[in-house]
Amino acid sequence: MEQDLSAAGQRADDAGEETGGRRGRRASGGAAARRAARSGTAAGPQLTYITRKIPLYEVLGEEGLALIEANAEHILQEIGIEFREDEEALDLWEKAGADVKGERVRFPKGLCRQLLETAPSVFTQHARNPARSVQIGGDATVFAPVYGPPFVRGLDGERRYATIEDFRNLVKLAYMAPAMHHSGGTICEPVDVPVNKRHLDMVYSHIRYSDKPFMGSVTAPERAEDSVAMARLVFGDQFVDENCVLINLINANSPMVFDGTMLGAAKVYARANQACIISPFILSGAMSPVTVAGTLAQILAEVMAGAAFTQLCRPGAPVLFGTFAASISMQSGAPTFGTPEPSLVSYGAAQLARRLGLPFRTGGSLCGSKMPDAQAAHESANTLNMTLLAGTNFALHSAGWLEGGLVASFDKFMIDCDQLAMMQAMSQGIDLSENGQAMDAIAEVGPGSHYLGCTHTQKNFQTAFYRSTVADNNSFEQWLAEGGKRVEERANRLCRDWLGAYEAPALDPAIDEALQVFMLRRKDSMPDAFG
Amino acid sequence: MEQDLSAAGQRADDAGEETGGRRGRRASGGAAARRAARSGTAAGPQLTYITRKIPLYEVLGEEGLALIEANAEHILQEIGIEFREDEEALDLWEKAGADVKGERVRFPKGLCRQLLETAPSVFTQHARNPARSVQIGGDATVFAPVYGPPFVRGLDGERRYATIEDFRNLVKLAYMAPAMHHSGGTICEPVDVPVNKRHLDMVYSHIRYSDKPFMGSVTAPERAEDSVAMARLVFGDQFVDENCVLINLINANSPMVFDGTMLGAAKVYARANQACIISPFILSGAMSPVTVAGTLAQILAEVMAGAAFTQLCRPGAPVLFGTFAASISMQSGAPTFGTPEPSLVSYGAAQLARRLGLPFRTGGSLCGSKMPDAQAAHESANTLNMTLLAGTNFALHSAGWLEGGLVASFDKFMIDCDQLAMMQAMSQGIDLSENGQAMDAIAEVGPGSHYLGCTHTQKNFQTAFYRSTVADNNSFEQWLAEGGKRVEERANRLCRDWLGAYEAPALDPAIDEALQVFMLRRKDSMPDAFG
Repeated sequence: MEQDLSAAGQRADDAGEETGGRRGRRASGGAAARRAARSGTAAGPQLTYITRKIPLYEVLGEEGLALIEANAEHILQEIGIEFREDEEALDLWEKAGADVKGERVRFPKGLCRQLLETAPSVFTQHARNPARSVQIGGDATVFAPVYGPPFVRGLDGERRYATIEDFRNLVKLAYMAPAMHHSGGTICEPVDVPVNKRHLDMVYSHIRYSDKPFMGSVTAPERAEDSVAMARLVFGDQFVDENCVLINLINANSPMVFDGTMLGAAKVYARANQACIISPFILSGAMSPVTVAGTLAQILAEVMAGAAFTQLCRPGAPVLFGTFAASISMQSGAPTFGTPEPSLVSYGAAQLARRLGLPFRTGGSLCGSKMPDAQAAHESANTLNMTLLAGTNFALHSAGWLEGGLVASFDKFMIDCDQLAMMQAMSQGIDLSENGQAMDAIAEVGPGSHYLGCTHTQKNFQTAFYRSTVADNNSFEQWLAEGGKRVEERANRLCRDWLGAYEAPALDPAIDEALQVFMLRRKDSMPDAFG
Repeated sequence: MEQDLSAAGQRADDAGEETGGRRGRRASGGAAARRAARSGTAAGPQLTYITRKIPLYEVLGEEGLALIEANAEHILQEIGIEFREDEEALDLWEKAGADVKGERVRFPKGLCRQLLETAPSVFTQHARNPARSVQIGGDATVFAPVYGPPFVRGLDGERRYATIEDFRNLVKLAYMAPAMHHSGGTICEPVDVPVNKRHLDMVYSHIRYSDKPFMGSVTAPERAEDSVAMARLVFGDQFVDENCVLINLINANSPMVFDGTMLGAAKVYARANQACIISPFILSGAMSPVTVAGTLAQILAEVMAGAAFTQLCRPGAPVLFGTFAASISMQSGAPTFGTPEPSLVSYGAAQLARRLGLPFRTGGSLCGSKMPDAQAAHESANTLNMTLLAGTNFALHSAGWLEGGLVASFDKFMIDCDQLAMMQAMSQGIDLSENGQAMDAIAEVGPGSHYLGCTHTQKNFQTAFYRSTVADNNSFEQWLAEGGKRVEERANRLCRDWLGAYEAPALDPAIDEALQVFMLRRKDSMPDAFG
């Protein structure tokens, strides 16, 4: 592996040093990597994905975990999971020894867990800039942006349908944000592009406007095929077959159903050795029981069945334990976020995932608010603190999520990115080195003095404290003199600055052309559809 | 203890059943307690202090803790702590075996830790309504409101000096808020009352407008004496001598100084068997080193010296390990809150406090923002999540804190109280009972259906999820139809509703009269001073 060169790297090298590529791949400290690290000048240097140095927070003890695991096995054995609209999936399960009646599959005790033994607990998702490749699993946490909103809150505060221009701008911001480790997938729905063609523009935008890892389309098997084909044009056929370059969101239709669309996409990705996130989409009280322990048993059963299915398609294919957890208002049925119960679900699910040996996805910066106000921030912060402390490996929706995920907000994207960088600083824990202990400073300063000018402070002040990009900590008088702005107004200004300073990362013109040709051919083969 | 009757209870009982008192004290399930529980009708039933059922989050391992403890002992031995403007304090230390040179006290290794063996690790702070008494220490967390702001953001959004009317209104809100377990102390500075007299009005307001436990004055020894005297009028002399009814904030003048004012107040309270919170007030980079480990060593040394001093005054007097942690902006010197470094300081300090066997105070809902916007909420939520997970026993500043503590905000008070109730729900962890497991629900509903109407949901939906008092989770269209309000506008409405619905808890008229007579006599003995 270490000696492999991706096709992207080889091609980039052919196209000359300017494009970055093999040198960057060979030596992440090389010129290309340095250029890449400089790419977000306006936003500050890029951070590698988080390698946690702080402990995990675990809410369940052995007894609780064993109880929920036994309940999940009971669900798999006695109730079963439906695999709908996919004869092949049912055949695969029958051959694997499951009990298949109609579309209902019941699993002999331990079958799913046994099938999952071939799934890796840690793997690398490669980016076309190798300095941006991410570890998925273990002590790594990767932040990825919001996924799925059909609307945006634009920079003039307007709420409207999202466009491909919004999509590109959000990809650019994610590319520039230091603690955003991933370009994500459907960062918003570009509804101005036909529904059957927009996946091509989305995948292309991730490749063209960023060099961070990204996600493939899951809304139809052929769109998954297109995503893999485009990845092959970037990374080369063999590299894609042997490595993960796409991570893909496969939602369960909770309770206890996988539908044909998701199964179709899962088959394409697993067989191409690309990663699936098997993710029950849970609004507790609607798609799962109103209790945390009941929800956890159902989630575990659903993930075990879905993730084991990927191993039937291709043993060894990377797969994640996903959990999207929210509650609902029992008056209105509206989803609610950042409340205690979904946090407890996610904390518990993280523990179950580790015991299953799968990387874990949950959390982000979720909220139900309609604007980036204190409600949005409280809900997002409650979710994000949990995301870090639970030991989440892949955190979708880490920035920009507003209004229960219906809206991608540019202002909130900037505010959230600032919080992501804080979490990254937090994740590094307490420095216990001699410099960290600062005994020389304490001796130098002594009782009744101050540390502002002492040697130790002078030496460390550049890196001592996380510096927020959007917070205002000036005096009331100075803040007032500067317009008395709310944080989202400062975030809006910063967002405009970043977009103004954006510079696209280099892309081998041969790869770019191959992608364009591919997209044109695919688009020409389809009539426009708006859905 | 269980059979003791406080003087307040006895007097209240003499005054007839209406006042609540002995019956409530004898049986917390009795009529008085039920009345008390109903007292916050508009705000919902009152919650008892938190008894945590979730694990602690600990960032330091044994090695790090031992290192910091050794560094603290080094500071105590070699650098020492100054006890200023207090000859008696220096005498006490000399007699205890410390090395006293001028005002500098150096401590033989282990002396402070040994003196602290008489301090209780858990105690009860009694309220005049026994249903509101709180446990300080162990697995208990007590939320108390903001302390100290000279300004308020009033209900019309105006920023102005605080008044005694504001003080009373904030006490009323804290009384009504279900998850606010404590009435606090200087909830704001009533600057319309002379500085030398206002402590009387503050203590009286806590007694008159609330029945929750409260704090005494620390700004001068004689004000501490007045606080104790008023507590004796409520609870009786003997009860006060034998029980904690006041908890009091003794700040260290970091680095490594206690001043005469604070020492004077500490002596009064410790000798009256009342609780001192020995609290280094730390803006890292100014009052302590810029590093977390250095700050922790200094905090531990300061607390050990200050807390041990209370045991010299009266062995067995209750004392807390306090930590107020913020960073400063290295550009402007302004304090910053909710950032990673202060959270790490507080997490570490909580561990050091447990090893010292002292209850721990930190955290709250701190922020530097000038208004209750997303900055305020992110910073507050980051601080409050840490407060809960660190196992904080007493959390001052839990609601209403704005602008680095310069301002008490009514709107933010309501938003924060909602978050406190969420933390309380979170603290109860995952219900693993048969009902919690919900296996009957999963079997009843089955694949592809929903849980909205199932038996288990019907049975549990009233209590299943925390319901926010200020969040809006309706659709965008409905939210817009209702005025498109930000959360602080809803909080403002709720605040007005609560104040409109407020009913004072019963107070024995004889006690009330005794308090009024005492205040009048004390006020008459002093000229007005405005400071």
